[in-house]
Amino acid sequence: MVKARKYVVKRNFQGVPKKDDFEIVEYELPQLKTGHFSVKAEWISVDPYMRSHSISRPVPYDQFGFQVGKITESKNPDFPVGCRVVTHKGWCDYSVVTNLKEAHSNVYIVPDLQGLPLELALGALGMPGVTAYFGFLEICKPKAGETVVVSGAAGAVGAIVGQIAKIKGCRVIGFAGSDDKVQWLEKELGFDKAINYKTADVSKALKDAAPNGVDCYFDNVGGELTTAIYSQMNLYGRVSLCGCISSYNEDPTTYKTTSLLPFIILKQLKVEGFIVSRWSEPENRWPEAIATLAQWIKEGKIKTRSHVTEGFDKIYDAFVGMLAGENTGKAVVKVL
Amino acid sequence: MVKARKYVVKRNFQGVPKKDDFEIVEYELPQLKTGHFSVKAEWISVDPYMRSHSISRPVPYDQFGFQVGKITESKNPDFPVGCRVVTHKGWCDYSVVTNLKEAHSNVYIVPDLQGLPLELALGALGMPGVTAYFGFLEICKPKAGETVVVSGAAGAVGAIVGQIAKIKGCRVIGFAGSDDKVQWLEKELGFDKAINYKTADVSKALKDAAPNGVDCYFDNVGGELTTAIYSQMNLYGRVSLCGCISSYNEDPTTYKTTSLLPFIILKQLKVEGFIVSRWSEPENRWPEAIATLAQWIKEGKIKTRSHVTEGFDKIYDAFVGMLAGENTGKAVVKVL
Repeated sequence: MVKARKYVVKRNFQGVPKKDDFEIVEYELPQLKTGHFSVKAEWISVDPYMRSHSISRPVPYDQFGFQVGKITESKNPDFPVGCRVVTHKGWCDYSVVTNLKEAHSNVYIVPDLQGLPLELALGALGMPGVTAYFGFLEICKPKAGETVVVSGAAGAVGAIVGQIAKIKGCRVIGFAGSDDKVQWLEKELGFDKAINYKTADVSKALKDAAPNGVDCYFDNVGGELTTAIYSQMNLYGRVSLCGCISSYNEDPTTYKTTSLLPFIILKQLKVEGFIVSRWSEPENRWPEAIATLAQWIKEGKIKTRSHVTEGFDKIYDAFVGMLAGENTGKAVVKVL
Repeated sequence: MVKARKYVVKRNFQGVPKKDDFEIVEYELPQLKTGHFSVKAEWISVDPYMRSHSISRPVPYDQFGFQVGKITESKNPDFPVGCRVVTHKGWCDYSVVTNLKEAHSNVYIVPDLQGLPLELALGALGMPGVTAYFGFLEICKPKAGETVVVSGAAGAVGAIVGQIAKIKGCRVIGFAGSDDKVQWLEKELGFDKAINYKTADVSKALKDAAPNGVDCYFDNVGGELTTAIYSQMNLYGRVSLCGCISSYNEDPTTYKTTSLLPFIILKQLKVEGFIVSRWSEPENRWPEAIATLAQWIKEGKIKTRSHVTEGFDKIYDAFVGMLAGENTGKAVVKVL
């Protein structure tokens, strides 16, 4: 019998998630039946949607999320012992996979990373990378020479979006929340301009950086920053709406922002929200995105960075830190 | 020399437009040059965009808008004396047309209305009808059997949208601001359900009327009504954003509403704003819409209603009344 541990959410989050909203529960892994296999987690992901999807989910629930681990026992010939798999089993150190169809993606064997770090399977070569790839290319439909703005630009998704936009020949402006992040975006990742939204006059800085207006906006953040960006968009601009992390810890019944509707009308904007699972069902297009991203990383066109927290007991801290913007690049937890 | 009168806006509107924001100016019509012609206005339109487009326009400006009138003198063989034309010359009793390309459409001769009232050229067979036709069909892309919601449903555009949706086999729910309007929508126009948003529990009434959720939303209104509707939209729902009249008299720097972004993400909605001029340039598709709408009116599939104010001196009152929702159907002014 394998003793396993998992984080259970006992109370729906209100405001910043609290440590005692969670309980770490010990349990015994069930016996494998035909088709099942067990996984020992090596890396566990913390992502913004874990906050936003909590609102109306019945409690208690096991904290969901992507993780990558090694198969330790298997009664499924397609998933042999020793292979690395990505599952959506969440914050647990051991798990049994009984169903290959999960909420946000299918369970899949980690493709050959050609020497790249394994944790990229949770970042640029996993859900955040696929989110950036399809969410930007298929919704913004960027053209070479256009001006692209990314909010949350130093996060797991935003950093990839900006680099894809550069590959596609766009001028790229990123908003992030610290001078260190701004430095990283401009000096390492090749953004044409990065702006610290916490200290800059956002409207003026954007006007300076994008004197001809904004054609595409990839939004991870929402809130008043988003209003300022909409107000400088060009006719027929496109907005890919991936997240609105600025409001995730707010009370949705009382939180109000400046209306975006007048800008959407006057500039005839197209705004589309999406969840990355739309590209795994009915047709699974994740491999196409992952293969292209891996190629770009190999060629040095996309640089990655992981923000690593160590220890199963520290997942809560990593999660709350990510929500507060402490990470530069992809926030992941290494299970020791 | 013809003495003409026009409304000039002296001050950009703040809140509800005030009577003394306008001045009625007398002036002499200029002599016609080759290609020019003069028009005596018979019907003048008042529309919501006259409020929203005022915000940043340099003053003073001549109040723009559609009107239909009779050609009284002409040096343009394509526009002979006696013909009826639609221009964007606005709130003036006489005008000289010197340029057939105008801001929101091209100047055009009123097509054969086959006995229908002339003022329809400003309503169902004019800008509002074309707005409803393309704005709904091309942006919402409705399918038979889908549920469509229209806000401002008893207005010039909304009433047409709802009836087009019925023609296309949709279930149609309209929001309007009085019991009389609700009666008209349900009893005369064939809406499946109409709801008085001023007196109903909007969320509950919509849940009852659309138990399977909302697939398409044609929005003329914005504000908290729009939030309530977004919250009941189905996966991959489409929103055609035509106007947000609820906020036109508000101060845009301080007016805030509940954020729509979480709904757009979770339901993966497509929201697109538009201005009807996109269908007159570069290709002029207005005739296609007007011909189809005229056919539907002839067949009794679309019913129209005009809310008539009489007298050139009363245009201001008609305008402010329309902004307050006093009209059922298209608000127009008959020039006596």
